[in-house]
Amino acid sequence: MRPYDVILKKRRGEELSRDEITFFVDGFTRGDIPDYQMAAWCMAVFFQGMSARETRDLTIAMARSGDVVDLSAIRGIKVDKHSTGGVGDKTTLVLAPLVAAAGVPVAKMSGRGLGHTGGTLDKLESIPGFRVDLPKDVFVRNVNSIGIAVVGQTAAVAPADKKLYALRDVTATVDSMPLIASSVCSKKLACGADAIVFDVKVGSGAFMKSEEDALALARLMVEIVEGAGRRAAAVVSDMNQPLGRAVGNALEVSEAIDTLRGSGPPDLVELCLSLGSLMLVLGGAAPDADQARETLIGLLGKGAALAKFAEFVAAQGGDASVAERPEILPHASHTAPVPSPGAGYVTAVNAEQVGVAAMILGAGRRVKDEPVDPAAGLVVAKKIGDRVAVGEPLATLHTNNPASIDEASRLVASAYTLSQSASSPPRLIKQVIGAW
Amino acid sequence: MRPYDVILKKRRGEELSRDEITFFVDGFTRGDIPDYQMAAWCMAVFFQGMSARETRDLTIAMARSGDVVDLSAIRGIKVDKHSTGGVGDKTTLVLAPLVAAAGVPVAKMSGRGLGHTGGTLDKLESIPGFRVDLPKDVFVRNVNSIGIAVVGQTAAVAPADKKLYALRDVTATVDSMPLIASSVCSKKLACGADAIVFDVKVGSGAFMKSEEDALALARLMVEIVEGAGRRAAAVVSDMNQPLGRAVGNALEVSEAIDTLRGSGPPDLVELCLSLGSLMLVLGGAAPDADQARETLIGLLGKGAALAKFAEFVAAQGGDASVAERPEILPHASHTAPVPSPGAGYVTAVNAEQVGVAAMILGAGRRVKDEPVDPAAGLVVAKKIGDRVAVGEPLATLHTNNPASIDEASRLVASAYTLSQSASSPPRLIKQVIGAW
Repeated sequence: MRPYDVILKKRRGEELSRDEITFFVDGFTRGDIPDYQMAAWCMAVFFQGMSARETRDLTIAMARSGDVVDLSAIRGIKVDKHSTGGVGDKTTLVLAPLVAAAGVPVAKMSGRGLGHTGGTLDKLESIPGFRVDLPKDVFVRNVNSIGIAVVGQTAAVAPADKKLYALRDVTATVDSMPLIASSVCSKKLACGADAIVFDVKVGSGAFMKSEEDALALARLMVEIVEGAGRRAAAVVSDMNQPLGRAVGNALEVSEAIDTLRGSGPPDLVELCLSLGSLMLVLGGAAPDADQARETLIGLLGKGAALAKFAEFVAAQGGDASVAERPEILPHASHTAPVPSPGAGYVTAVNAEQVGVAAMILGAGRRVKDEPVDPAAGLVVAKKIGDRVAVGEPLATLHTNNPASIDEASRLVASAYTLSQSASSPPRLIKQVIGAW
Repeated sequence: MRPYDVILKKRRGEELSRDEITFFVDGFTRGDIPDYQMAAWCMAVFFQGMSARETRDLTIAMARSGDVVDLSAIRGIKVDKHSTGGVGDKTTLVLAPLVAAAGVPVAKMSGRGLGHTGGTLDKLESIPGFRVDLPKDVFVRNVNSIGIAVVGQTAAVAPADKKLYALRDVTATVDSMPLIASSVCSKKLACGADAIVFDVKVGSGAFMKSEEDALALARLMVEIVEGAGRRAAAVVSDMNQPLGRAVGNALEVSEAIDTLRGSGPPDLVELCLSLGSLMLVLGGAAPDADQARETLIGLLGKGAALAKFAEFVAAQGGDASVAERPEILPHASHTAPVPSPGAGYVTAVNAEQVGVAAMILGAGRRVKDEPVDPAAGLVVAKKIGDRVAVGEPLATLHTNNPASIDEASRLVASAYTLSQSASSPPRLIKQVIGAW
């Protein structure tokens, strides 16, 4: 087999065999197949696509390219959740303790933020003392004893995907459906979950700009995971404005705690209930989504989810009192309102711009491995459908770098579209796939 | 400007500006833009194509990537000829002295053979003493004094094209019309000719398998060269069987001498007259193609072309007596007929297979920089339309390596398709473009 022939075959739009795909991925991972051949192949895939079978084989080849995590020492059906990345998306902080409280074990490997999107690890690390670098045995022990642990993904998981993603990122081949789906699913499969619930974001702050594309990606990922012998479900959810109100690490933890206490922003609560229901059904902890939702609402209402959160924080070295006193989270030295330049009804909030503003304030990374400021970020005051007067705050900025306020403020102000007639907030849950 | 954006823009099918193309080619030539970004870009070009304007800008950027040969010290309109590569194609050996004899200066930079196609330099070097490494001043002096000189292309001409071609060759992006056209034309423009006549081959032994593609390539190349401010014309000619009868270096020189003497094979004579007529018209040595043809026929008939050939050989250190005594050319130690396995009329001769057979016998290179055996090759006895009996020779093999005879013989035999009903020879000149 020659790499050239695999490129040519894909360029011609023919279906690659499993052997051809595995040969190509393995050769690339080892460095035998050079970047330029993989780059040409990725561009051919961009134009010719891949069948569901090819995409599954690509996913499996990448999942097996490095360590495959064995979670069999953990009792029960391990259900993972993956979001394609949004702004203000703190669902994992709420969902993990919530479904753990419902008896579904949460053994989660998370990532860090980059660009305008945040990462769960960064958010958790804003809690004083919280550690995400648990050794494998502590990780397993914690899940078995309290039902929950969250750690960072090791570099040894799906190295083919890491190498491939870095290449796609500089060759304009990121936005290919089969390449996106296989990238996400390979990591998830390698991390050992029995079932996965996907949250595919759609809108101005998401990678997928159209509902049609988001739905296709959601369906493809469910198909891949089911084809690999695991269970899967997916939700397509709105990202035409930030989720909830807080954007930034400590600010989002604080909002997650509010939500676990039963007083979260309605969109965040709704998304957590939708995703959590699917997780409970896939985890065998509820017979159907309706009963799962009732269970989750009960756990939020009686404080069980918040208690599980405190237990989780303590088990990972964090100050568990944060659950009752979120004010112990780091605070920024400066806060500043963003006054509205106009009056009217909010009809759109460009979530990506809001995310970039938070990054500028210190909450995110421009490039990999940059430190983030846990206290930085912003809290939006106005969301779609809200009325706003001239000079009324659209959001409040939080930063330890006052020099960043002007630029962030301009970005946030320009993220808002106002109209003279009111429009209703976008439907949050666009589609639910699988787990009927 | 970022390389990424240039890739993305082409991937989206948008037209690149001249600045973008120049930036990309220059960055690649310098090594600032890595192979993997160029590979992705080439694959995007394969799918999205390029406009004539983009292709011209790409050509010019590549032509200017290294040395640009200045032929202004040579008097008259310098007309070059380029063939896209065929089997048994010794037209340059005939055309160069023929048009020089008609008063059009020939200042030619040629290449070597690779794979199943031969190269003019290798052919000329089969003449005892012939040298292709003339210093620039000798090259110019020879053209000014006797009207003709042929040298090897230096590595400093169009280095972007060399680097790009090597990359395309391993990333399945060779067969893209704008990339082929810009590769050919960039070298020709950098070599300094005032006018270029293209011979685009079509058929089993050519890169272009369909007449439609060959015609499109011919038109595109003429458009590029005219757009770059030079004159151009093109012929689309048949390569569904070897041109003439001889394939191999010394064997082809011998056939070229026969042709200059007025007794060449009809297809070779016809092609030389067609291409030569266009060269004379572009070179201002004839008012139209018909008169040009008459002039050329006259020069062949009265021995003027052969005399110019002898002058040319002598000027480059070769033994000029070859013009009268081709038997001084190297001879192979072994010859062997290829008996026909069947009887009937020849309806097709796969030229590529015949070319590979000649390579196996020692006439060509499998990989760059391999030595070639000047004496090796073959002479086909039967061409399309000829009748053949069982056991009658289809061709005669010439080699100094008798171990190669069996394989070459099998290849040649299988290159022939016989039928019980006669079919007429293919039309040699399919199309003529430009220079009306």
